[in-house]
Amino acid sequence: MQLVILSGGSGARLWPLSNNARSKQFLPLLEDGKGGYESMLQRVYRQLTKASLTDNVLITTTSSQKDNIINQIGSNVDIVFEPERRKTFPAVALAASYLYSKKGCSKDEVVVVMPCDAYTHDSYYNTLMKMVKTVESDYANLVLMGILPTFASTKFGYIIPEKGQDRSSVQKVKKFVEKPPQDKALKYLTQGAYWNGGVFAFRLGYMLKFISKYIGSTDYEAVVAGYEKFPQISFDHEISEKEKSVALVPFFGEWKDFGNWNILTSRLKTNAIGNAVMGNNNSNTHVLNELGLPIFIDGLQDVVVAASYDGILIASKDRCDNVTEYTDSLVTRPMFEERRWGTYRVLDDTTYADGTRSLTKSIVVKAGRSISYQIHHHRSEIWTFVDGEGLFVLDGKVSKVGPGVVVNIARGQYHAVKALNDLSFIEVQTGNPLVEEDIERFDFDWDSVKVD
Amino acid sequence: MQLVILSGGSGARLWPLSNNARSKQFLPLLEDGKGGYESMLQRVYRQLTKASLTDNVLITTTSSQKDNIINQIGSNVDIVFEPERRKTFPAVALAASYLYSKKGCSKDEVVVVMPCDAYTHDSYYNTLMKMVKTVESDYANLVLMGILPTFASTKFGYIIPEKGQDRSSVQKVKKFVEKPPQDKALKYLTQGAYWNGGVFAFRLGYMLKFISKYIGSTDYEAVVAGYEKFPQISFDHEISEKEKSVALVPFFGEWKDFGNWNILTSRLKTNAIGNAVMGNNNSNTHVLNELGLPIFIDGLQDVVVAASYDGILIASKDRCDNVTEYTDSLVTRPMFEERRWGTYRVLDDTTYADGTRSLTKSIVVKAGRSISYQIHHHRSEIWTFVDGEGLFVLDGKVSKVGPGVVVNIARGQYHAVKALNDLSFIEVQTGNPLVEEDIERFDFDWDSVKVD
Repeated sequence: MQLVILSGGSGARLWPLSNNARSKQFLPLLEDGKGGYESMLQRVYRQLTKASLTDNVLITTTSSQKDNIINQIGSNVDIVFEPERRKTFPAVALAASYLYSKKGCSKDEVVVVMPCDAYTHDSYYNTLMKMVKTVESDYANLVLMGILPTFASTKFGYIIPEKGQDRSSVQKVKKFVEKPPQDKALKYLTQGAYWNGGVFAFRLGYMLKFISKYIGSTDYEAVVAGYEKFPQISFDHEISEKEKSVALVPFFGEWKDFGNWNILTSRLKTNAIGNAVMGNNNSNTHVLNELGLPIFIDGLQDVVVAASYDGILIASKDRCDNVTEYTDSLVTRPMFEERRWGTYRVLDDTTYADGTRSLTKSIVVKAGRSISYQIHHHRSEIWTFVDGEGLFVLDGKVSKVGPGVVVNIARGQYHAVKALNDLSFIEVQTGNPLVEEDIERFDFDWDSVKVD
Repeated sequence: MQLVILSGGSGARLWPLSNNARSKQFLPLLEDGKGGYESMLQRVYRQLTKASLTDNVLITTTSSQKDNIINQIGSNVDIVFEPERRKTFPAVALAASYLYSKKGCSKDEVVVVMPCDAYTHDSYYNTLMKMVKTVESDYANLVLMGILPTFASTKFGYIIPEKGQDRSSVQKVKKFVEKPPQDKALKYLTQGAYWNGGVFAFRLGYMLKFISKYIGSTDYEAVVAGYEKFPQISFDHEISEKEKSVALVPFFGEWKDFGNWNILTSRLKTNAIGNAVMGNNNSNTHVLNELGLPIFIDGLQDVVVAASYDGILIASKDRCDNVTEYTDSLVTRPMFEERRWGTYRVLDDTTYADGTRSLTKSIVVKAGRSISYQIHHHRSEIWTFVDGEGLFVLDGKVSKVGPGVVVNIARGQYHAVKALNDLSFIEVQTGNPLVEEDIERFDFDWDSVKVD
């Protein structure tokens, strides 16, 4: 059995903690049961480990998520990178071509595809194994997980089974319905419909024909090269809804789509994460504060406050979804990012009256990690080291750096830095434009550097 | 007539926009009627100007407020600095000794003392002139302004007049009551009591005897030198409540004590100042945002949000006063200050695992202004200039600075900077301790510097 985890979207409903650089599955907001917090991805991976299902895991994502994934669950897992975001059908096709042509899996092998942004009971993974057995028994070409609905949601897709089947076990599927209006949703509920949880199982060979249809080959390199030939369509629209031989395996345990602040905070045992001072007159109010400054809250009812360096959301829990309507006026460049080498935070971004702009960052490089050898074509940088020790390279010349050392990196100068222990510096950028994309990377052989 | 304005306290109820460096009277939160905003101090001074009362104004304050006062109302007004904060009686005594022994006012001259944190109708200044006439007519030794109460407040002091007097004019005062409980307040209201608005008038000679009592002299220098001999007591407790010959002049116009967010926002015509995006489902909700990041708000009712680099307050309007109970856990060093030479903002203040600390500031020196020639005994500073032009002095050597220039100021090195036009730089401090007080100032003769 091969398990494919789709690590997708940005999660605009969880602004400002979620942004283009940090999708919702990476937010460390779930209590891990040991007094700490974990992300949705970390929870899923922990549950997979507990169920001994981590041997054959493949994650499909975009390259922007690579550092987050490795930082959160390590580098023992295979990752394929979508050349561009094109919804779930192309992502699954990419994974299938990798399993077949790169990993050498047989056409008979069962593939299970699952998202990583659902909060589920551990028994979810037993249901997942039942799906595998159902495919292996050739009961249907495509097997989905049906989530037992707990209310008449208008935000999920519904799976309608054929009538007269045993509801406790595998069922033949009659049809799919996408996000129905309230009255329809209620009707489906009474008729024994399930929510579509986005978990699919099939034999690898089944998926390969869909790849050939668009690419003319099942070869991984060909799929990567021809990725834009795939329609931008979901797996459900392209495959599930057209397939005649579909079955579902019902799941009766806890399942929550952590799509917004209301649902997410309902899981928290504490009302405040981060620097927050709560008065005595709040009820059902939650604060998630990633800022360095304190938040004082009193007299609020059913309110969520989420604060990051990108912005602050303050909304009643029944209105917190509305933030997605205002994304254009709220979203700027990410002000905080976690990278493979460490983290950076934008401290200041000022455009002066004469049009000059400066960008100031606080940067931490983790012990043993390095920032790649690089040049910038449009900006100069001044780094003031404030803590730790490291090696700094400027145009090939290596020097040791630490608190009080200042380096002046002109436009076009090659530079890199490696942390001997956790290394912190303040970076002041000037130039035009000041964008993350103004970077050209080169190889540098750190092993050849002698340390005093 | 001499007018003394008391510019006092920090205004903890208006946290986080108000702090020790920026008392509430300096917050630019009042609509000025011309599309902009003005502070309480600016409003009072504008009203004094309109009433032609600015000829003989003296402000008493502490030296920490000097820059704020000059930046907001200019330097045409006399200021005396309290050697330390000791409540209103010592502050009035200090002002009186200045008027008598430095300014040469006669003992018969009438002095009016007023606060600068009340929001009043222009007619307030007519009442103030009536108080002067009442003193001149020797109707009483001490004349106060009585504010017509609009509700049974438990937060103000009450002035109880003798019975049977004409309520439209000057009245003899029977007694004073400090912040009564609700039932008492209601009783006083029905008996025709007034709120004590903290406005007093008397002949200068009247005050001098109280000064002599504690200092043994009415000489200004002696008062400054012996300031700690004054009891830490209000003018009301030390003088008004003990005086037998007291009158009040009633004021019937609009008077508001801008003591908390509820009252302050009730005056605003707009619901959002600063970077705020309001959804469609808010009612009676106000946002005041001084941060660079956006705030999104929806679904809130009767809530005030106030955000500065010191922190964020989010409270229902009936609970916003509660913040004063949490001051200890909320108040840190000021993160933004306006000085005579310009402004600074703390961008980052990090203590690392090994105990090293760094403090990063964004500093703007206004065109033509300079930062004094100074040394620091415990910290080194690295300045990266990002905009504008200026002259920088290091151990007596002058150089021209501008974008891209970096200067490294070691502990104990003498330095100063003067802005030729608005000059911006990022300052990184390292050392221990990192406090504003680690500064020793010296004279520097900028006129002797030749500019290329």
